[in-house]
Amino acid sequence: MPGRFLVVEGIDGSGKSSQVERLGHWLPRSGLMPAGARLLVTREPGGTPLGERLYPILLNRQSPIHSRAELLLFAADRAQHVEAVIRPALNAGHWVLSDRFSGSTAAYQGYGRGCSLELVHRLEQVATGGLTPDLTLWLDLSPQQARTRKPPSPQDRFEGAGSDFTERVAHGFRQLARERGWWRIPAGEPCTVVEAAVQAACHSTLAA
Amino acid sequence: MPGRFLVVEGIDGSGKSSQVERLGHWLPRSGLMPAGARLLVTREPGGTPLGERLYPILLNRQSPIHSRAELLLFAADRAQHVEAVIRPALNAGHWVLSDRFSGSTAAYQGYGRGCSLELVHRLEQVATGGLTPDLTLWLDLSPQQARTRKPPSPQDRFEGAGSDFTERVAHGFRQLARERGWWRIPAGEPCTVVEAAVQAACHSTLAA
Repeated sequence: MPGRFLVVEGIDGSGKSSQVERLGHWLPRSGLMPAGARLLVTREPGGTPLGERLYPILLNRQSPIHSRAELLLFAADRAQHVEAVIRPALNAGHWVLSDRFSGSTAAYQGYGRGCSLELVHRLEQVATGGLTPDLTLWLDLSPQQARTRKPPSPQDRFEGAGSDFTERVAHGFRQLARERGWWRIPAGEPCTVVEAAVQAACHSTLAA
Repeated sequence: MPGRFLVVEGIDGSGKSSQVERLGHWLPRSGLMPAGARLLVTREPGGTPLGERLYPILLNRQSPIHSRAELLLFAADRAQHVEAVIRPALNAGHWVLSDRFSGSTAAYQGYGRGCSLELVHRLEQVATGGLTPDLTLWLDLSPQQARTRKPPSPQDRFEGAGSDFTERVAHGFRQLARERGWWRIPAGEPCTVVEAAVQAACHSTLAA
């Protein structure tokens, strides 16, 4: 596939959104992207019209959702995102930067909710159609530090799931980073230091 | 599982909803159900609060949905329906009658949309957690007859998908009925004759 696919992963409060925004400004000016390639910045869940409609269902705690149904909903959101947005952009030679991707499902639904990791992995294949990121940047921050930065919202299905849940998710991200060769970014540093580490990672892995 | 699980399947316009309603009235008075058992009448998609929110997304044609995402959404709806509604009722000794179940996904997403039947089958296992109906009644009506009874709505994602699609779905139902041992009900007869055939099928298969 001619384009490159970058993903930023991490627990809530790890600074993902802020780093995605900074990276989205920097990358087209970095000299890393070939002439003519554009950068598409997107997110999961919610990066498509279908995803926009699923987003409040997935994140709002009001209606209880069984863990297997939740896993399948995230897979549906991802399948649409891959086929309608990510793959067409990559095929056209553009670069794609996504705030979360399948690693989040493995961490939240697998490690967090306790869905079988084998099932999570099988559904990941179905959802992504085999697409894997060229670079996954993992913003590593402890749940304690993340809570200080961004107090959890009780209305959010995941932020409101309690600190044991968040600990399992954080443990999941650590395991996944090791298994999948993600690029670890220490995320407890000031924002500009984290940004510099992100840029260094991009230079190391994406220079032609 | 102490309760019994009945499903009515068929193409749009085959008279499913009408027969489900009649069966829902007759079954508790039929002498087939044990004392104390209640009958829960439900449907897919949409038989849970989550399903009610997914229903308009699944059936409305406005936002395009990739076939793999559609398949995963139906699986999510079904997983929730099974775990929150069907299985608890069966475990409590009640009977459950559902207007559509996993056979519809095999017919519409597998045969109709052309999703791999092997993938459809794998997701069926995930969605149902292995639950299979005790009796599936298949209302067999040709697409031509069904169209005369109920003209397809262009706003409905499936009814508006064209006659080739409906032919593939009808063919799928025929195949599935053979493979899965469904009870075939000729559905071109007057409503009361169809109802009598449905009742006969229940007597044959569900008498203790």
